[in-house]
Amino acid sequence: MSKGLPKRSEDYSLWYNELVKKADLAENSPVRGCMVIKPYGFSIWEKMQAEIDRMFKETGHTNAYFPLFIPKSYLSKEADHVEGFAKECAVVTHYRLKNDENGNGVVVDPEAKLEEELIVRPTSETVIWSTYKNWIQSYRDLPILVNQWANVVRWEMRTRLFLRTAEFLWQEGHTAHATKQEAIDESVQMMNVYAQFAEEFMALPVVKGVKSEAERFAGAIETYCIEALMQDGKALQAGTSHFLGQNFAKAFDVKFATKEGGLEYVWGTSWGVSTRLMGALIMAHSDDQGLVLPPKLAPIQVVIVPIYKGDDQLAQISEKVAEIQSKLRAKGISVKFDSRDTHKPGFKFAEWELKGVPVRLAIGPRDLENNTLEIARRDTGEKQSFDLSEDIALKVESLLEDIQKNIYQKAINFRESHTTEVNSYDEFKEVLEGKGGFVSAHWDGTAETEEKIKEENKATIRCIPLDQKQEEGACIYSGKPSKGRVLFAKAY
Amino acid sequence: MSKGLPKRSEDYSLWYNELVKKADLAENSPVRGCMVIKPYGFSIWEKMQAEIDRMFKETGHTNAYFPLFIPKSYLSKEADHVEGFAKECAVVTHYRLKNDENGNGVVVDPEAKLEEELIVRPTSETVIWSTYKNWIQSYRDLPILVNQWANVVRWEMRTRLFLRTAEFLWQEGHTAHATKQEAIDESVQMMNVYAQFAEEFMALPVVKGVKSEAERFAGAIETYCIEALMQDGKALQAGTSHFLGQNFAKAFDVKFATKEGGLEYVWGTSWGVSTRLMGALIMAHSDDQGLVLPPKLAPIQVVIVPIYKGDDQLAQISEKVAEIQSKLRAKGISVKFDSRDTHKPGFKFAEWELKGVPVRLAIGPRDLENNTLEIARRDTGEKQSFDLSEDIALKVESLLEDIQKNIYQKAINFRESHTTEVNSYDEFKEVLEGKGGFVSAHWDGTAETEEKIKEENKATIRCIPLDQKQEEGACIYSGKPSKGRVLFAKAY
Repeated sequence: MSKGLPKRSEDYSLWYNELVKKADLAENSPVRGCMVIKPYGFSIWEKMQAEIDRMFKETGHTNAYFPLFIPKSYLSKEADHVEGFAKECAVVTHYRLKNDENGNGVVVDPEAKLEEELIVRPTSETVIWSTYKNWIQSYRDLPILVNQWANVVRWEMRTRLFLRTAEFLWQEGHTAHATKQEAIDESVQMMNVYAQFAEEFMALPVVKGVKSEAERFAGAIETYCIEALMQDGKALQAGTSHFLGQNFAKAFDVKFATKEGGLEYVWGTSWGVSTRLMGALIMAHSDDQGLVLPPKLAPIQVVIVPIYKGDDQLAQISEKVAEIQSKLRAKGISVKFDSRDTHKPGFKFAEWELKGVPVRLAIGPRDLENNTLEIARRDTGEKQSFDLSEDIALKVESLLEDIQKNIYQKAINFRESHTTEVNSYDEFKEVLEGKGGFVSAHWDGTAETEEKIKEENKATIRCIPLDQKQEEGACIYSGKPSKGRVLFAKAY
Repeated sequence: MSKGLPKRSEDYSLWYNELVKKADLAENSPVRGCMVIKPYGFSIWEKMQAEIDRMFKETGHTNAYFPLFIPKSYLSKEADHVEGFAKECAVVTHYRLKNDENGNGVVVDPEAKLEEELIVRPTSETVIWSTYKNWIQSYRDLPILVNQWANVVRWEMRTRLFLRTAEFLWQEGHTAHATKQEAIDESVQMMNVYAQFAEEFMALPVVKGVKSEAERFAGAIETYCIEALMQDGKALQAGTSHFLGQNFAKAFDVKFATKEGGLEYVWGTSWGVSTRLMGALIMAHSDDQGLVLPPKLAPIQVVIVPIYKGDDQLAQISEKVAEIQSKLRAKGISVKFDSRDTHKPGFKFAEWELKGVPVRLAIGPRDLENNTLEIARRDTGEKQSFDLSEDIALKVESLLEDIQKNIYQKAINFRESHTTEVNSYDEFKEVLEGKGGFVSAHWDGTAETEEKIKEENKATIRCIPLDQKQEEGACIYSGKPSKGRVLFAKAY
């Protein structure tokens, strides 16, 4: 197949868009800003969901489901929250269409106007805390450790597949606790769960940190986050976990009777990752030939392509392949035999390369004679002949592990070579306009300086790293004193 | 715990509502007609989803995701379809709120009016077929076998938890085929998948059939369905599978190049089951003590309650329980040890009974002495002492199988005793007003008669059973000739 994929070095943004479409991951829908996640893309998301969901359950969380709609007045109850979401939300005003009397097809029925408008949830804190009010009376009802998998809508004006879409899929955890410390611990725990998922499964190294006040979630006291670096030197926020303090408990009057007989507001957290992770996964590892998927999230880990002339050869190869498939499957490896007779091997090689299948096995008539096959790995492109008298399943298993480690290490190396400590504003600008990446610099801690730097460079404070070194210094912009470096970057 | 559950015989409808709430399955939300599915209820739905999803994948389907919103003009492209859904849909007209100048909080921003209104999907045929137009050029692109798990909204005026809610969760399969026969086969296959799931997992016997024209899905040529009977003698439609003919292909101009070089419209199907199945599951088996769950869908299959005085006894019992738990878990049985010290055993017994846990084990100090425990089964209430020198895991495993079979058989017996052949309209009315259930009667095949019977009895044709006996007869209403009996019932 002809891939027609632009090169990353020529137009990274176009490369990304084309890759998402050509690899059958997603496409734009007829509805502005909303995407269609295609079966191949969705199967990757399902693998991500399964692992994340398992990690949530292992940390004591259960799933539930809350309404899609939020009454307008609920959104307004937490002041920062409404400020953050009101400007980009889908508003339901009517509940019926009718046939137009002038023959213009169906139109909104003006008589079916809602008394109170409903907002399609951009996030569910308000509707969930209004529900928690009925669930929580006493300390015995705490903690509540609930997650939901859902779609949400934020009316973004400039959208990009997976990275920024009007509707996206996500999970949102919402927990309620009796003490401040327990809620903070929960927020930190979930940030760690996200970091572990990103590193172990996505092979994506992340920096853990907290957001500056300006970048904080609307309604949170503290936002913990994980930040990853893409191949073009831009950062991507991959997950956030918010310590909400008592903000939503106060907005919805959620109090509990303490063990000691008092009455206190409940402490809360919320945390989420979304289909945005798909964007991160694609951009972190892929190359000019197409997707590179980490074996732990690849829906197809191994593809087998037969090279043959005529039905007899195909039959012989198929018999051999059946053996190999059953050995691989016994190890829990997912394997596809691409025996389509409508396409040539070269086309198939290119297609599976584009789709990021980690390992390709090819078998032709000479292989049959020699009892061999060819193994190719997607990440490095290396090929080798393998003697089938040895254990193919063991070989592939260790190769998949190698690939997982290799792409993770590659991403770490990239991040290391793209994280720069700077000590002056000139240096800061130079790095940002040059190789990009994370720029570690002193900042005076004020929102004014943060805003100026953002305006002048289109770069934001990605986070104050949790492992921030205590180091006295001077703000690169204002020269005022700073107690430690923060990470700046241009970001998605 | 005090259950305060009404008796089925006194007020079936109230019994259902109270059971759903008290067993922590679901509750009404602040948004009219929308429900909150609580963690325990959702964990049952997750088990249902997992099995259904597995069955879909085994029959060659993959998941994908399509937009929540449907442009108004799309809904209108299939005439019957818009007629069926326009009267009860949520309409998004604006994309922003703003602060009111008169200080009335946030209001809809009139300047942020959408050019074209968006409908929150009541079902996704239109947006999916408009997408399929781009996916299908040739017979090589067919079949497309796609499913999505999603939320949908139908603005129902009278709602009931799980059975009829404005928003509900469901799956909707949408397939595209090169031939009419293949599409019909697919519709029938999916009806069979639903029937198998209902009977094997939900322990719910169903009648397979086709809908009369009046009850058909808006836009379908034929609607296949599975119909179940609840304990109050009312029927519940548990799943539908539609043969769409070329209706949506024509509405969205989806043609394909045939193998022979022609150009033809694509054939389609769609099929779905929803959280309504939760309502069916609850109503089919439960009793005046609470839920009765089939072991195959119970999130907790076995609960162990310790009976003790003081920490020493609890410690001794806990040690024994740990052994038992690990034996049960080794067989894949889900087991919970309820060691809460805040509640007495009697309270716990009642709570787990209410929540429908199939098997309860109780261990007290005398059991420790005798190396025994007490086994109680939820479906029959039977209790027995069990000697722990025998294999407890084997015992519980076979008990769970027994319970699954027993509640299924009980439901079959109920249905048999509540399916009545009648040969006159008087008899028909008598049965409907008496014990209810399925009434098997001759019908002349006209929509007029169907409508009259519905008006006069609030009963509808549930289906024309697939195993309909060929039998000449006279319509119970009009006396006109009929070629076979159809099933009437009052229905949810």
